[in-house]
Amino acid sequence: MVVILKENPDKQQLNKLVKWLESLHLKTHLSEGAQQSILGVIGDTSVVDIELIQALDIVEDVKRIQEPYKNANRKFHPADTVIDLGTCKIGGGNFALIAGPCSIESEEQILGVARAVKAAGARVLRGGAFKPRTSPYAFQGLRDEGIKLLLEAKKATGLPVVTEIMDLSQLPLFDEVDIIQVGARNMQNFELLKALGRVRKPILLKRALAGTLQELLMSAEYIMAEGNEQIILCERGIRTFETYTRNTLDLSAVPALKTLSHLPVIVDPSHATGISRLVPPMALAATAAGADGLIIEVHNDPAHARCDGPQSLTPEAFADLSKRINHILEVR
Amino acid sequence: MVVILKENPDKQQLNKLVKWLESLHLKTHLSEGAQQSILGVIGDTSVVDIELIQALDIVEDVKRIQEPYKNANRKFHPADTVIDLGTCKIGGGNFALIAGPCSIESEEQILGVARAVKAAGARVLRGGAFKPRTSPYAFQGLRDEGIKLLLEAKKATGLPVVTEIMDLSQLPLFDEVDIIQVGARNMQNFELLKALGRVRKPILLKRALAGTLQELLMSAEYIMAEGNEQIILCERGIRTFETYTRNTLDLSAVPALKTLSHLPVIVDPSHATGISRLVPPMALAATAAGADGLIIEVHNDPAHARCDGPQSLTPEAFADLSKRINHILEVR
Amino acid sequence: MVVILKENPDKQQLNKLVKWLESLHLKTHLSEGAQQSILGVIGDTSVVDIELIQALDIVEDVKRIQEPYKNANRKFHPADTVIDLGTCKIGGGNFALIAGPCSIESEEQILGVARAVKAAGARVLRGGAFKPRTSPYAFQGLRDEGIKLLLEAKKATGLPVVTEIMDLSQLPLFDEVDIIQVGARNMQNFELLKALGRVRKPILLKRALAGTLQELLMSAEYIMAEGNEQIILCERGIRTFETYTRNTLDLSAVPALKTLSHLPVIVDPSHATGISRLVPPMALAATAAGADGLIIEVHNDPAHARCDGPQSLTPEAFADLSKRINHILEVR
Amino acid sequence: MVVILKENPDKQQLNKLVKWLESLHLKTHLSEGAQQSILGVIGDTSVVDIELIQALDIVEDVKRIQEPYKNANRKFHPADTVIDLGTCKIGGGNFALIAGPCSIESEEQILGVARAVKAAGARVLRGGAFKPRTSPYAFQGLRDEGIKLLLEAKKATGLPVVTEIMDLSQLPLFDEVDIIQVGARNMQNFELLKALGRVRKPILLKRALAGTLQELLMSAEYIMAEGNEQIILCERGIRTFETYTRNTLDLSAVPALKTLSHLPVIVDPSHATGISRLVPPMALAATAAGADGLIIEVHNDPAHARCDGPQSLTPEAFADLSKRINHILEVR
Repeated sequence: MVVILKENPDKQQLNKLVKWLESLHLKTHLSEGAQQSILGVIGDTSVVDIELIQALDIVEDVKRIQEPYKNANRKFHPADTVIDLGTCKIGGGNFALIAGPCSIESEEQILGVARAVKAAGARVLRGGAFKPRTSPYAFQGLRDEGIKLLLEAKKATGLPVVTEIMDLSQLPLFDEVDIIQVGARNMQNFELLKALGRVRKPILLKRALAGTLQELLMSAEYIMAEGNEQIILCERGIRTFETYTRNTLDLSAVPALKTLSHLPVIVDPSHATGISRLVPPMALAATAAGADGLIIEVHNDPAHARCDGPQSLTPEAFADLSKRINHILEVR
Repeated sequence: MVVILKENPDKQQLNKLVKWLESLHLKTHLSEGAQQSILGVIGDTSVVDIELIQALDIVEDVKRIQEPYKNANRKFHPADTVIDLGTCKIGGGNFALIAGPCSIESEEQILGVARAVKAAGARVLRGGAFKPRTSPYAFQGLRDEGIKLLLEAKKATGLPVVTEIMDLSQLPLFDEVDIIQVGARNMQNFELLKALGRVRKPILLKRALAGTLQELLMSAEYIMAEGNEQIILCERGIRTFETYTRNTLDLSAVPALKTLSHLPVIVDPSHATGISRLVPPMALAATAAGADGLIIEVHNDPAHARCDGPQSLTPEAFADLSKRINHILEVR
Repeated sequence: MVVILKENPDKQQLNKLVKWLESLHLKTHLSEGAQQSILGVIGDTSVVDIELIQALDIVEDVKRIQEPYKNANRKFHPADTVIDLGTCKIGGGNFALIAGPCSIESEEQILGVARAVKAAGARVLRGGAFKPRTSPYAFQGLRDEGIKLLLEAKKATGLPVVTEIMDLSQLPLFDEVDIIQVGARNMQNFELLKALGRVRKPILLKRALAGTLQELLMSAEYIMAEGNEQIILCERGIRTFETYTRNTLDLSAVPALKTLSHLPVIVDPSHATGISRLVPPMALAATAAGADGLIIEVHNDPAHARCDGPQSLTPEAFADLSKRINHILEVR
Repeated sequence: MVVILKENPDKQQLNKLVKWLESLHLKTHLSEGAQQSILGVIGDTSVVDIELIQALDIVEDVKRIQEPYKNANRKFHPADTVIDLGTCKIGGGNFALIAGPCSIESEEQILGVARAVKAAGARVLRGGAFKPRTSPYAFQGLRDEGIKLLLEAKKATGLPVVTEIMDLSQLPLFDEVDIIQVGARNMQNFELLKALGRVRKPILLKRALAGTLQELLMSAEYIMAEGNEQIILCERGIRTFETYTRNTLDLSAVPALKTLSHLPVIVDPSHATGISRLVPPMALAATAAGADGLIIEVHNDPAHARCDGPQSLTPEAFADLSKRINHILEVR
């Protein structure tokens, strides 16, 4: 951490600051210049609340040098985290295809899609029961009933399942769910993150529309600080000025996150683009960029899907894409 | 709503679409051109799930013409909504200054600040008990104890109070709180919004970092659809590429929201800029732009505040600002 | 400047770096920690090319502490720059209203608008001759002929005039123009900026759609480094995810730029919002925020303007706004 | 085009609008509803200035349905444009690797890099002579001398060369240059675009930091409208809120642009990320996404490059990457 001091800082206040930092087991070095002095702070600064220092009269600015996260940091945990679902693994060289409908609509639909995506190579089944929708008048998901149908599809196909939680009061319904998804809108729902830190199952944490990579890792840190270290990070597009696509898929997040952290990183090209014909090229690109998996929307009848139809692939298109992804995996 | 059709649309599918729209009591008009045909849809389209149409094979694009919100829409409710707190009103020409510390730290602190801001002209006291912090290692607020201290300050000064809820499980603690704040990170926590729609007290709804004006109004609509029509909208800065300020205060949101909706609109210049010296000019600007109120962070000792010190005003600076705001109010 | 070193940096390379920095008359201080060492660099670092250091093997990151601009920096030039146009001044407490049509269309139009805005209190006449348009099929301005008409309006009314240059080949036409405008799209047209640095007249420099405050000041520095210190900075809205307004007016740029620099700062609420009914509230807000002037589009017949009609005020609306601006000026 | 009318539009004005549209050989259809009426406009609307309509009193909003570009539009020109450089082709299934240093620094450097990248599989040599730099104090390129050295490298290796133009006054120097690059900052330098439309050589047009896909295509249209149809579009990262990477590479632009237009699309992973270790994964991802080529910065001694060292690859790293790109090309 580097503290940039105002011109002619009050000596007494500076002394006080130095003593406080040293009481936190940090080392400080003062570099004095004619117009500007800086105080270098060395040690574990992740516990320091940067705003406390920023607010001091003698301080012009504070810049972090170390990342403010620890459990999620590759520097302190060099080996890749591997999520083991029994039937498949994610991370540490293991790639997993996750697929299924945006929302669960009926037994017939979820079972049909589950069988189709399994046959095409998917290793995990996705399906939304609780649906975050911008409008209160849009279909909100089958909720409890949806979870039940998803678990039936799990039984029928043997595929582990992932579905989204929207509020911590729903947690009891997720007992047999294999991976709990935290959606982009809840990336900074800190009470939910803390509760999921006390759960013992993998969490699929999606990046918020305006979430920086550092904030995504800090949200992972919230979960990990409570004891749950099984987290899968998911890039799903960020909000920018471009309106042609629903969001802008930030694929550089894949190698960046894998450098900064040991957690597996997957990509959701369906929500990122919002346009089914852009899903295959972005899925292939994400694979080439080094993603540990993909989560893709597949619907048996996209034109009549109750949500996100425009971005869903048919089972046939998914099967074709799955083959092309395998070709990339062989050469990447 | 305008449905742009692909070249040579299948007649049968087009017929099916037209019949379905008419079954929703909408009128349709087909304009056929050599290369492009469009289907105009007239009536109350707020209930139509636009994605259902977008996913159809014969459809190239769909454009909404009407706003997808109804209860929050000024077109259907021309008169300003006025929030009446007994001791003061917000909206419909009534301006209210809301002030207080970012977080409640002690009885002495909250009481001291409450008295100071009241003396300077504040009509509502703010203070955070549950604090959303990016880092799990930063101060998380006094929580239940904070609410208790805030209610003591309410008793002591007679000021109505506003404080943030972070999860719906906390709702029972808000019984004597006058206004419940939904923070920017929870603007699309739809389960929380629905629950607050069943509460009978004003909700202060902050715009998300990446929330469009329309999404903010749709979130208000979630609350209103459940029966609670007392909502105060709050512009508090959006996330852009500019990093000099913490966020970018979008003041054009004030007249824009007041055109689109009848709900009162206030501005938070403290979180928007993150820099105390920018708070007064932005508070004055917001007032001149027509805001119905301001929410400003004031701390008796910003240099030792446990959070957001850099953006807090001293009580003296706030008293001075309050006078200047009044001057603007007289001429605006 | 602070250089963050990689773990166990090569001593020889570090020595070489230190010697090179000292050869530039900079002082260095090394703070060594167990895991991280940092090199503080004190002195005039604006001449250091930060990328040269960033590329070194031993360097993890470099953070600037000092601003990289000098001539535009208030630290080295505390007094406000005042632009003196003879008939009026801008900056240092002097506020100027600049108004006129987006584009010059005919002698009758420019003369009519010029007389109307002068009567309403405008001190400078604006009017576009060279028009940057997104589409090659849109009206491109009257060009040379437009400049001629603008100068006739100057003669007829005595108002100084400002108009935009789009390429340095057009410079000879600007001899009698009082202020040369550099549009948002040319903020980083560095060849043009250098040429304008050798001109001896005020330059109105608009912020780019994706230009940071620092980049705007660096562009001013390009002009100033060549000897022309008469620059007026202009905030005109930045591009964000919000699409309700054409751009997002960043009013915090006004007090921020005035802190960082001594140059006058004006605001263009017409281009920022793109909606005429949002122009008056944003003009009043900009005035309250401390702007040194405003540049506003006024057209005698907005419904038939050849460009930017939707954001133009009528002369009557402008006259009314001018009075309200004066009321704010009296109390700000 | 769809014109949304205000409630109870004046019949006479509406008639006038309809007649004017019909005089432009467009067909109109009026759909009247109780609260809202819309006017559908069918035909070639690319020549209509949308703002003229938007400004009318009776109009609430106007929405384009057709793209406002024609020459660049795949709808009117279904076959891929292929750029033929004699020794290699770009587009229509032909992939080209473009590589070289950010800036030309010396004869030895440009020749060395040219030979190395040719050996590794590059088909075009890049090198900057005129360098757009944010700071006037940073290295501005060797300018005329740089072009001379680049042409020597062309002679020595037989590689066609691409280099950036910053102002149209530099055009005479580009006689023997094979591809003229328009940088991101000049994407909307319309005078330059028009001049390049009268040149008979390929133009490499980079997307602006805040340029939408549509604006990029409109800028291509500026060049094509003057007669030059040899344009290569280049995605090089856009500006977003994320600061970990220099820009955010928008790879979905590749399939999107190739759907909208027949022009070849290449990707610049070096400027997009600004970090050399992110260049290979993003280069592979761009290839998998369907790009027609890549432009990559390679420097023989990145640690001593005079500009953009942190994002340059060594010749060895480039040779390795080139092989991996070929593997992706074989399976994509």
